[in-house]
Amino acid sequence: DYAHIDHHRSLRKGFPEVIFGQGKTAEQIIGIMQAMAKNEEIILITRMDRQKADQVRAIFQEAEYDEAARILLLKTREPQIRSKGEILVITAGTSDIPVAKEAMITAKAMGNRVNSIFDVGVAGIHRLFAHGRQIQAASVLVVVAGMEGALPSVVAGMVRAPVIAVPTSVGYGTSFGGMTALLGMLNSCSSNVAVVNIDNGFGAGFMAATINQMPDKGE
Amino acid sequence: DYAHIDHHRSLRKGFPEVIFGQGKTAEQIIGIMQAMAKNEEIILITRMDRQKADQVRAIFQEAEYDEAARILLLKTREPQIRSKGEILVITAGTSDIPVAKEAMITAKAMGNRVNSIFDVGVAGIHRLFAHGRQIQAASVLVVVAGMEGALPSVVAGMVRAPVIAVPTSVGYGTSFGGMTALLGMLNSCSSNVAVVNIDNGFGAGFMAATINQMPDKGE
Amino acid sequence: DYAHIDHHRSLRKGFPEVIFGQGKTAEQIIGIMQAMAKNEEIILITRMDRQKADQVRAIFQEAEYDEAARILLLKTREPQIRSKGEILVITAGTSDIPVAKEAMITAKAMGNRVNSIFDVGVAGIHRLFAHGRQIQAASVLVVVAGMEGALPSVVAGMVRAPVIAVPTSVGYGTSFGGMTALLGMLNSCSSNVAVVNIDNGFGAGFMAATINQMPDKGE
Amino acid sequence: DYAHIDHHRSLRKGFPEVIFGQGKTAEQIIGIMQAMAKNEEIILITRMDRQKADQVRAIFQEAEYDEAARILLLKTREPQIRSKGEILVITAGTSDIPVAKEAMITAKAMGNRVNSIFDVGVAGIHRLFAHGRQIQAASVLVVVAGMEGALPSVVAGMVRAPVIAVPTSVGYGTSFGGMTALLGMLNSCSSNVAVVNIDNGFGAGFMAATINQMPDKGE
Amino acid sequence: DYAHIDHHRSLRKGFPEVIFGQGKTAEQIIGIMQAMAKNEEIILITRMDRQKADQVRAIFQEAEYDEAARILLLKTREPQIRSKGEILVITAGTSDIPVAKEAMITAKAMGNRVNSIFDVGVAGIHRLFAHGRQIQAASVLVVVAGMEGALPSVVAGMVRAPVIAVPTSVGYGTSFGGMTALLGMLNSCSSNVAVVNIDNGFGAGFMAATINQMPDKGE
Amino acid sequence: DYAHIDHHRSLRKGFPEVIFGQGKTAEQIIGIMQAMAKNEEIILITRMDRQKADQVRAIFQEAEYDEAARILLLKTREPQIRSKGEILVITAGTSDIPVAKEAMITAKAMGNRVNSIFDVGVAGIHRLFAHGRQIQAASVLVVVAGMEGALPSVVAGMVRAPVIAVPTSVGYGTSFGGMTALLGMLNSCSSNVAVVNIDNGFGAGFMAATINQMPDKGE
Amino acid sequence: DYAHIDHHRSLRKGFPEVIFGQGKTAEQIIGIMQAMAKNEEIILITRMDRQKADQVRAIFQEAEYDEAARILLLKTREPQIRSKGEILVITAGTSDIPVAKEAMITAKAMGNRVNSIFDVGVAGIHRLFAHGRQIQAASVLVVVAGMEGALPSVVAGMVRAPVIAVPTSVGYGTSFGGMTALLGMLNSCSSNVAVVNIDNGFGAGFMAATINQMPDKGE
Amino acid sequence: DYAHIDHHRSLRKGFPEVIFGQGKTAEQIIGIMQAMAKNEEIILITRMDRQKADQVRAIFQEAEYDEAARILLLKTREPQIRSKGEILVITAGTSDIPVAKEAMITAKAMGNRVNSIFDVGVAGIHRLFAHGRQIQAASVLVVVAGMEGALPSVVAGMVRAPVIAVPTSVGYGTSFGGMTALLGMLNSCSSNVAVVNIDNGFGAGFMAATINQMPDKGE
Ligand SMILES: Nc1ncnc2c1ncn2[C@@H]1O[C@H](COP(=O)(O)O)[C@@H](O)[C@H]1O
Ligand SMILES: Nc1ncnc2c1ncn2[C@@H]1O[C@H](COP(=O)(O)O)[C@@H](O)[C@H]1O
Ligand SMILES: Nc1ncnc2c1ncn2[C@@H]1O[C@H](COP(=O)(O)O)[C@@H](O)[C@H]1O
Ligand SMILES: Nc1ncnc2c1ncn2[C@@H]1O[C@H](COP(=O)(O)O)[C@@H](O)[C@H]1O
Ligand SMILES: [Mg+2]
Ligand SMILES: [Mg+2]
Ligand SMILES: [Mg+2]
Ligand SMILES: [Mg+2]
Ligand SMILES: [Mg+2]
Ligand SMILES: [Mg+2]
Ligand SMILES: [Mg+2]
Ligand SMILES: [Mg+2]
Repeated sequence: DYAHIDHHRSLRKGFPEVIFGQGKTAEQIIGIMQAMAKNEEIILITRMDRQKADQVRAIFQEAEYDEAARILLLKTREPQIRSKGEILVITAGTSDIPVAKEAMITAKAMGNRVNSIFDVGVAGIHRLFAHGRQIQAASVLVVVAGMEGALPSVVAGMVRAPVIAVPTSVGYGTSFGGMTALLGMLNSCSSNVAVVNIDNGFGAGFMAATINQMPDKGE
Repeated sequence: DYAHIDHHRSLRKGFPEVIFGQGKTAEQIIGIMQAMAKNEEIILITRMDRQKADQVRAIFQEAEYDEAARILLLKTREPQIRSKGEILVITAGTSDIPVAKEAMITAKAMGNRVNSIFDVGVAGIHRLFAHGRQIQAASVLVVVAGMEGALPSVVAGMVRAPVIAVPTSVGYGTSFGGMTALLGMLNSCSSNVAVVNIDNGFGAGFMAATINQMPDKGE
Repeated sequence: DYAHIDHHRSLRKGFPEVIFGQGKTAEQIIGIMQAMAKNEEIILITRMDRQKADQVRAIFQEAEYDEAARILLLKTREPQIRSKGEILVITAGTSDIPVAKEAMITAKAMGNRVNSIFDVGVAGIHRLFAHGRQIQAASVLVVVAGMEGALPSVVAGMVRAPVIAVPTSVGYGTSFGGMTALLGMLNSCSSNVAVVNIDNGFGAGFMAATINQMPDKGE
Repeated sequence: DYAHIDHHRSLRKGFPEVIFGQGKTAEQIIGIMQAMAKNEEIILITRMDRQKADQVRAIFQEAEYDEAARILLLKTREPQIRSKGEILVITAGTSDIPVAKEAMITAKAMGNRVNSIFDVGVAGIHRLFAHGRQIQAASVLVVVAGMEGALPSVVAGMVRAPVIAVPTSVGYGTSFGGMTALLGMLNSCSSNVAVVNIDNGFGAGFMAATINQMPDKGE
Repeated sequence: DYAHIDHHRSLRKGFPEVIFGQGKTAEQIIGIMQAMAKNEEIILITRMDRQKADQVRAIFQEAEYDEAARILLLKTREPQIRSKGEILVITAGTSDIPVAKEAMITAKAMGNRVNSIFDVGVAGIHRLFAHGRQIQAASVLVVVAGMEGALPSVVAGMVRAPVIAVPTSVGYGTSFGGMTALLGMLNSCSSNVAVVNIDNGFGAGFMAATINQMPDKGE
Repeated sequence: DYAHIDHHRSLRKGFPEVIFGQGKTAEQIIGIMQAMAKNEEIILITRMDRQKADQVRAIFQEAEYDEAARILLLKTREPQIRSKGEILVITAGTSDIPVAKEAMITAKAMGNRVNSIFDVGVAGIHRLFAHGRQIQAASVLVVVAGMEGALPSVVAGMVRAPVIAVPTSVGYGTSFGGMTALLGMLNSCSSNVAVVNIDNGFGAGFMAATINQMPDKGE
Repeated sequence: DYAHIDHHRSLRKGFPEVIFGQGKTAEQIIGIMQAMAKNEEIILITRMDRQKADQVRAIFQEAEYDEAARILLLKTREPQIRSKGEILVITAGTSDIPVAKEAMITAKAMGNRVNSIFDVGVAGIHRLFAHGRQIQAASVLVVVAGMEGALPSVVAGMVRAPVIAVPTSVGYGTSFGGMTALLGMLNSCSSNVAVVNIDNGFGAGFMAATINQMPDKGE
Repeated sequence: DYAHIDHHRSLRKGFPEVIFGQGKTAEQIIGIMQAMAKNEEIILITRMDRQKADQVRAIFQEAEYDEAARILLLKTREPQIRSKGEILVITAGTSDIPVAKEAMITAKAMGNRVNSIFDVGVAGIHRLFAHGRQIQAASVLVVVAGMEGALPSVVAGMVRAPVIAVPTSVGYGTSFGGMTALLGMLNSCSSNVAVVNIDNGFGAGFMAATINQMPDKGE
């Protein structure tokens, strides 16, 4: 009675409903997982803290937990790669890596090739340019940055591919928990950029996967 | 000396630099267009008011101006369609149409098939469902809404394709010039959604075109 | 001396003053309850954490405490149903249930029939429509949602009855502790909607009860 | 093609779709009115400035326009009173009257008895109490206030009936275009209060009418 | 070297510098007190938590600590009453009492007669009017309220004396830690009101004392 | 019917109700003045633009209008000085003078001696100190400043008298229409300061007059 | 009486007081200029619109006015160059040029060599790198940008010299009149950056000049 | 793989990359330090809490940790003084000292003479003036203040040298974690002021050092 699982979602969207772990009790999460496990090969729960994850894994022992990404993943078989293209996840700093990981695990679970370049922020921009070839080769880019959030503009200026920008709450004072990075990204002077919520690695990974797995449509 | 045109951009990104008309004098815009016209088949200027557009068209008489979209377009030949997929632009209300048009003109100029459904907001949601088939067939969706900005969530819940959400400044009081719609879209409980700046039809059209024209990558 | 109980309130408003538990010591709450218990058949205390509730129940052992709703209820007899109509409480997600419970306990304590539908958010909107008949039959609806807060607009578009919208602090990043949901609800494109404070299940339940128990006035 | 009129709305909600005039051209409004006039006895357009209203009345000469309320009303017969109860609209100041009028015209058009008391703000609160009897007799109250927005709390403390609070943009400096009044109303220490958007007289009138016209449900 | 005590302040302002306890170590506070104790009969430290207060009282055993008000007071003789007038401190709720106490202790330490009325908020406004005579007799009023902060407007409307309004952080959701109450007070429709910072009982008590102890100037 | 004049106010507060001109029509203002003129010797209307003032003075020819202060004053005899003390109004810049004038006219109309020092902001603080003696002699100070709003803190640090701080909307960019000055004043590290709304010269003058005219209470 | 000119400022700070033109009447400005002209060789007035400038130049015919920069300059002899170093002013876009000009005129008037590079924003970052040598040679840099304000971080990462960042109000929607650019600059991941107010070209030019003209201090 | 150290930075900017400790694990920090220690004589890590510092010092035993400043410093030889000029760090209160220390340690590590004056806020401004000579002698000033943040304006008005203003989060209520101080500083009516992020002592120290160590350029 506490959950109406959207069983139709795998059919409609190609991937089952993803559980938002925050604000749910371990009991509720276990109940939802038990109901879903009957029909789904993969179950993803986001925003899980370690304590709740441990309670859930007492029941679902094969579930994998990534503490930095706060993701719990239960799968009965490996996701099949469903696109030739590659998703590239880039971060401005070391401190942005947990959000990047949330995106990477999500996109991999959905059946994508995923790669990463970490800590190439704009204060030493030659570090970014050193990876120019790999950046230009990516099908979709996820660019993760806190503080002033300038990296997506620079990356998007270098490529023809779509860039999903993810602001993080890394910073202090007027970084306002990621609001500054978000606003910077929304005002990007590059045009092949769209933005997701602060620290929303999951959403960025999902959107990148959605784009990367579009059916062929070139002429 | 007032402009450094990015002549390399057509090559790098497949489309020439787009001029941001706001805050530039008609003289500056004409100068930039003259410099670009030597190399480019298409020149797009956004955020042009009628008065400036008229001054520019005194010089470039073949330029087309859309007053609602505030776009000026100069082209020496029709853009070639470069994708089998179709971009579908949907608005919540009649008042959101100008922003939708900015997206449509941009995406068409870049060589995309573009269609639209207007005024199907969530207060009478059966109007949206009546177009279910067309919505499910689109390659990329641009969903434009002001006020509470709820439409992209509902549309994204219906499809597997990526949705670019565009908040508009339609509303009053606590709509805060589009901020409420923007925040709603960033917090969408559907995951195949990414967001652009308030009233940024241009950016949405550009991003949708970028996605729609990705090289084939299915397996 | 720390409290001026509004003893006249039962008479004036049909229900005694409700104690706001936050920011009061257990001693103050006990003192207020002792003063009220002389005249009232029911005493409601909101925003009580477990620790304070335990201290109070050491004195008032018959008091019932709901930890999710953070409500303490002391009653000497069951509230009498005072309306034919039914209040229906709907939530967008599982994480919104505690706020819904605060509304439900309040409205029941005031003498109303109360029902609920949980976890029918707009990302899978068919789940909502499956309950169409029950929704259309309700006298008053309380719709509880966090994140983008879109559900009240959709529900209100389906019914003729008044909808009380309750934003919750469920979400992260730009959900701003419920502000995004609140703003969305205030800008609802449906007109039979009014809004209460973030996480204010109590106020929503009280307002719904007030409406549901209005004296007959049809012609 | 610029409008999808919700023709089903009269049936579903007892009143036809109301047109939001802001951001629409006079031509669009006339087109919508022509389509609606085939089926509806009453058409309401809100947020109309005088200039657009004049253009519309050149076509629909029998339409009535209230400039303060910015409402255009076209009706083929008088609305029938459909409730015994009375809606009472109260304002804190003289400057809040236009918003009050928007509520009153709306509620009357929907078939309600409506009365008003203007300029009884809390700085001279005896003025309010002088109307105590009329206030206590109302079925539903709409309380309109700018600046600190304190009046709804005081009125709601006096009555058992539901109060719809409407913040207005009257004030300056930190009144922030009505935000201060809105926040005050959302934090009312009276519990029979719910709130609508800033300057949203239309929504308040509609919600009050919805409540006032609920089918009988007392026991 | 960590503090430049303003030893000239007693002379200039009639009361020694008051120490802001927050953000200082116990060692720093003790050092400052030792330096001040040579010249001053009274030392006031605000915003002290219990732990720091205990460390300080290990050295200054005669110091009095009020945990609710978070004030530490060290005095070598009782403050002399220096005005015929009386300061009256009024609160809207029980939860506002700690801030009221900070004002009362401050004003008493400065040599004023101080009285109080607690929990007379506007939801049951007859409770306030029951104290009409005492309210009209006060020389200066300090009115303390959280949530919508409406009480100072009502009180100021009843009296000729100056009212110092103190917003408190009591509330939740859109009370925004007292911002809503502050804004309400700044927009008061009564004119004999001025405002201090959120939860600044100290400043309100100091300002009220300053006013109450002005040299005679009537004609 | 558009106004409930508070005729009891002169009696209760020693000064008649002051009319808030903004948002009222000239007709409404004239009507209110006609009703008040029967009982009052002085009528003050604030926030009047020149055009409305001219319409009113066509009827009330003896009314005086100050365009900078936007005040209209109608009096049948000169206000009597009712206090020995003097109110001193100080501004940080030349651009703050209109707000200062609103305070000065108000306080004079209420029967106070009023003086002023203009343009002594903190960037050249010796200009302020040159007036030290006059500043120390004032009974009540009104300090008016825009931009960073630092002047009230410095002035209040120099005197024992109460300081009413008035933020102005002078500035640009992050002065946020006076919000920065307001916040600075609310956080003053001097304690004999209380604050009124942005650009609220009227309120500051009224509050200063209220304080300056308190009945004698020294011992 | 409306102005206290800080005649001591040339002596103290090496440059006379600069007049803030906004909010002053032409008469006041002329009066201030007449008083200053007795002692100063150069008078600068900022934030002057054309109309006021014309009125002033009717009296001071030799004054030069730059309409884009909104600066009026009156000088009796050319400013002497007082530093070997060069100030370089860089803008992200063409629309940022007016703010850049305000900085350039100010710094030149104070006796500095000033150069500029316009329209080298981060979306086509090779345009910036093409000027690498000139950028590295500058003594002080002023970097002007609107929208996401990312340019100062990138420039500061390339040089050892201090960078003064100036956010502009260029942009729309969530650029919030320059707030987004400002926040980005305050959160720069380069550390040789400090920031001035939005659109404050004057302040940036003044600060850059102050730094460029520091007395020699190397060892 | 979690860090791309900018090894080129010492060369380019005269000082190696500074590690931002917040959001990194102790393991990551140790790894970065080990990589840097091969080439650098000094390594600075900011925003380190004690626990992480202890873990790091188990490996790098010669590293020095300042708990107030939250800085860890590892150096193989003393920094050489590289400028004749002196940096002076001034604070408004005792509570601002930790931020001042972060600036001081940074500037010293970069090879500057650094001095300080603490607790000379504007409420007792004679304390500041007592240090007039030392203040006028400084080459660069760093002025640190919370609450209303008025001190930098006053200091900058006294000197010809550049002032770096640092807002701190000291305060409560409407100090908004330092936002009020920041806004005040950005709106300074003194023009030789530029600002860094809230609590960013590191950035202020770095910028002051950058300015203090500019190569000679006087003529
Ligand atoms: N959770 C709540 N949210 C808002 N108002 C409440 C809540 N609980 C009680 N109240 C109201 O707060 C007032 C009591 O406040 P107090 O005197 O502080 O106990 C009553 O008017 C109640 O109706
Ligand atoms: N609770 C408080 N709120 C605001 N200001 C205070 C408070 N307590 C002390 N002060 C003021 O803060 C200043 C002392 O700050 P500090 O030098 O940091 O101790 C003095 O001018 C006091 O008047
Ligand atoms: N455009 C400007 N932005 C900020 N401050 C300015 C500006 N122009 C002048 N000022 C400063 O404002 C002060 C003069 O203000 P006022 O006395 O109102 O003319 C001087 O201290 C100037 O340094
Ligand atoms: N406390 C600080 N505040 C702002 N920036 C910093 C701070 N500490 C280090 N940085 C900068 O942050 C960057 C390093 O970030 P990261 O790669 O995450 O270590 C470098 O460019 C530093 O100059
Ligand atoms: Mg790094
Ligand atoms: Mg429509
Ligand atoms: Mg769910
Ligand atoms: Mg009135
Ligand atoms: Mg109470
Ligand atoms: Mg001046
Ligand atoms: Mg350009
Ligand atoms: Mg101190």
